[in-house]
Amino acid sequence: MSEKLNKLKDILGEVSDLNRAAAVLGWDQQVYMPPAGNEARGQQLGTLGKIAQEKFIADEVGVLLEGLKREFAGADPASDEVAMIRVASRNYEKARRVPPAFIVEQAVVTSRAYEAWIEARAKSDFSIFQPHLEEVVELVHKYISFFPPSDHPYDTLLDNYEPGMKTADVRAIFDSLRPRQVRLIKAITASKQVKDEFLHRKYNEKKLWDFGVDIVSKFGYDFSRGRQDKALHPFETTFSVNDVRITTRFEEENPIAMLFSTMHEAGHAMYEQGVNPKYERTSLESGTSLAVHESQSRMWENLVGRSLPFWEYFYPKFKKVFPAQLEGVSLKSFYKAINKVEPSMIRVNADEATYNLHIMLRLELEIAMVEGMVKIKDLPELWNTRMREYLGVTPPNDAKGVLQDIHWSAGSIGYFSTYALGNLVSAQLWEKINKDIANLDDQIRMGNFSELLGWLRKNIHQHGRKYEPQALVERVTGSKIKADAYVRYLTRKYSEIYGF
Amino acid sequence: MSEKLNKLKDILGEVSDLNRAAAVLGWDQQVYMPPAGNEARGQQLGTLGKIAQEKFIADEVGVLLEGLKREFAGADPASDEVAMIRVASRNYEKARRVPPAFIVEQAVVTSRAYEAWIEARAKSDFSIFQPHLEEVVELVHKYISFFPPSDHPYDTLLDNYEPGMKTADVRAIFDSLRPRQVRLIKAITASKQVKDEFLHRKYNEKKLWDFGVDIVSKFGYDFSRGRQDKALHPFETTFSVNDVRITTRFEEENPIAMLFSTMHEAGHAMYEQGVNPKYERTSLESGTSLAVHESQSRMWENLVGRSLPFWEYFYPKFKKVFPAQLEGVSLKSFYKAINKVEPSMIRVNADEATYNLHIMLRLELEIAMVEGMVKIKDLPELWNTRMREYLGVTPPNDAKGVLQDIHWSAGSIGYFSTYALGNLVSAQLWEKINKDIANLDDQIRMGNFSELLGWLRKNIHQHGRKYEPQALVERVTGSKIKADAYVRYLTRKYSEIYGF
Repeated sequence: MSEKLNKLKDILGEVSDLNRAAAVLGWDQQVYMPPAGNEARGQQLGTLGKIAQEKFIADEVGVLLEGLKREFAGADPASDEVAMIRVASRNYEKARRVPPAFIVEQAVVTSRAYEAWIEARAKSDFSIFQPHLEEVVELVHKYISFFPPSDHPYDTLLDNYEPGMKTADVRAIFDSLRPRQVRLIKAITASKQVKDEFLHRKYNEKKLWDFGVDIVSKFGYDFSRGRQDKALHPFETTFSVNDVRITTRFEEENPIAMLFSTMHEAGHAMYEQGVNPKYERTSLESGTSLAVHESQSRMWENLVGRSLPFWEYFYPKFKKVFPAQLEGVSLKSFYKAINKVEPSMIRVNADEATYNLHIMLRLELEIAMVEGMVKIKDLPELWNTRMREYLGVTPPNDAKGVLQDIHWSAGSIGYFSTYALGNLVSAQLWEKINKDIANLDDQIRMGNFSELLGWLRKNIHQHGRKYEPQALVERVTGSKIKADAYVRYLTRKYSEIYGF
Repeated sequence: MSEKLNKLKDILGEVSDLNRAAAVLGWDQQVYMPPAGNEARGQQLGTLGKIAQEKFIADEVGVLLEGLKREFAGADPASDEVAMIRVASRNYEKARRVPPAFIVEQAVVTSRAYEAWIEARAKSDFSIFQPHLEEVVELVHKYISFFPPSDHPYDTLLDNYEPGMKTADVRAIFDSLRPRQVRLIKAITASKQVKDEFLHRKYNEKKLWDFGVDIVSKFGYDFSRGRQDKALHPFETTFSVNDVRITTRFEEENPIAMLFSTMHEAGHAMYEQGVNPKYERTSLESGTSLAVHESQSRMWENLVGRSLPFWEYFYPKFKKVFPAQLEGVSLKSFYKAINKVEPSMIRVNADEATYNLHIMLRLELEIAMVEGMVKIKDLPELWNTRMREYLGVTPPNDAKGVLQDIHWSAGSIGYFSTYALGNLVSAQLWEKINKDIANLDDQIRMGNFSELLGWLRKNIHQHGRKYEPQALVERVTGSKIKADAYVRYLTRKYSEIYGF
């Protein structure tokens, strides 16, 4: 094998080791660390990140990559080597453009912005966060200036979360989705609301935990190569293909959410557990993008976990565990309740029908911020106006409005659309899967998920980052990311539940 | 402040961050990691260790240290800066002598030796381990050859665990201890044995855990800057002065051991929690040596935790938690039972009276290996002969004899004596403490440990690595490490318990 390639792999391997070591420290920070350990942990994470960055953007890596591009110019473009070099080059070129001093500045600004956001949200006072968000947006402009001009300045940000995706693409997709999704919500809210008070009774945490573990074990999440712990915010994290962990949480006022959070994170985790082990410690390790990742989590959480066939299998067992809470509640009533649609303030609690509108609102505001078309101080009012327009609700305060998400305080502008895109991809894949596995519903009805997981492993998981997200979706479904399948899915599901 | 010193501190800080990140990974590996994650974890730990080593032994560090030694030549020798430079120089000079290729070779040999040891112990077949131990001993000779000749080749090894300590010192201490300790054991075994069958009844794990947590909280182990988890082998680990964790275990056949293991590890942890925070991320962070560390763990476990005043306070509470198990068992009987002396095969289960003899046996064999005075294949027989001589017992097989400890498979030759030295130091400190705190027993009888911990903080903990172990012990007690106080302590305690 090429000596240059071996050398590159050694360096990428060390960078991966450092990043995954940082992931372990991050996991511990959120799961077990005593709060007093936070300052030192921040310093340790800073050092790991700095060294990983230094190693990756070293001149030597650039020379190796140039040499390798020449060496592999005539090689099979579909080979792992070519993909590895392509992805590493892409990341290298992006990383080299950002001066180390900027990274330090960004860390300082976002760390202060995060503190301010915590306080602002607690006091529901946007004015506390406003000057910090202004600084964040300035930083974002500075960041964009390091890169060659693209069709739209927002493209530079989007590309960090969804490689190859353009602002115009996302806008076109969302423009095609928005009116249909708004229409659907109107039809639903005009119908008789479903009952779900039995979901808000007291449910025992331990029993829910165990039920969730049982579900995702049946899905195929491999606990021998992972584990689940409790955390304030559920997440998935990867330490290696053989150690992919999830967290979940229990909320008194919404106990059943724990099940769906477990399924969601297990969806992410099964993706990571399914990446071809030969990509470990290379630029191809892990899932290919946030949207494709989200398509996996949302598929297991919603397309599977909120479907009727799924509960035909699990509901009798669930009722056995919680007979008092579910007394007199039929399968159909339970199924309707967990799919209740109700326009509301908070994105993370939104149902499938309204969720994407929360995202569209954020995308519009982010683009306006990047274009400089909106004053930061006007964001709360703009937010509330859009909420009324899209969802017909008005946040009672900024904590439940413009201050609800952490992302902007962390400088993560460009991230949100991947959530909605993930929903779309999940439905797009689902149509294809149901063509390939004709009796999938029957399999699910029997609690059998192995053919489904096998399909995902073969078509999505194993490839890691080998294919760019849009290319992967097209390769598998025959078309790039589109809204149609998702609209069909929502319409079919909710017209049946709400009877319109 | 000196610019050179700031530069050095930056580098030492990063090295500390890397080492403590590795500690987090090691903790997770032993506490929560799914076994499948082991291979990747080994690689991640290898990378962190390699980078920390590279950063530390860089030429730049040597130049800085030389410059700093000149700059601080006239400074107060008792200042933190001088100590920091002295300790960093010492570690630097040692680390520079060991070629990176040797470290790789050592990792390979010990990793194979560890696997072989696991198998050999499981099958109780020394011949499986023998060729690997031969390789380890060869490596040890090679390691010694990197260093200038010392009085005894074993000095080079010992110095890694107990800075400044010489083989001749340890031998002199042990020679003065051995006959007195053997005599004591003879007196004990000639006396009527105490009863302890009530310690081996069924005890509820959760209740013991809670009781242990209550004890060490009262000691002053600060759970807001630490936590306890379960692990196969109890240990203490430090991620920062504000995050010092312990682990414990529950053994069905010896349930009470959990309490003492918790006290032992909390003793280590309180040392680390008490180091002056200004030493964080410098060469002075952490405790000064293994022996002084062990003096802290053994003090809380034994001098405090197996004392009569301690149980005068805790026994009534303990009996309330386990009334059935302890029915009819008086405080005195309980106290005698937890101090039962019984010569036995296994070091980690040994009582206070016999423990040090296990160590002396190992030291003699290690010195013989290093001197080349013993053939590795003859070790089992030699082991068993010494066991008969010192303790009057013969291991029924090698698993319970020469194969019982992990240390040699890890290449850790030179480590064992620190356990016994720690015992001696604990008693030496204890005599001084009881002079300084006249009514210490009364305080302990009331469950009040704050003056004791305050004394340890002031005299030992806060100094971190500022003083070399022998210097620290002398500074505090007026004499270097000696066996006398420990012999006095054992004699007083056991003559009273066994009535001779």
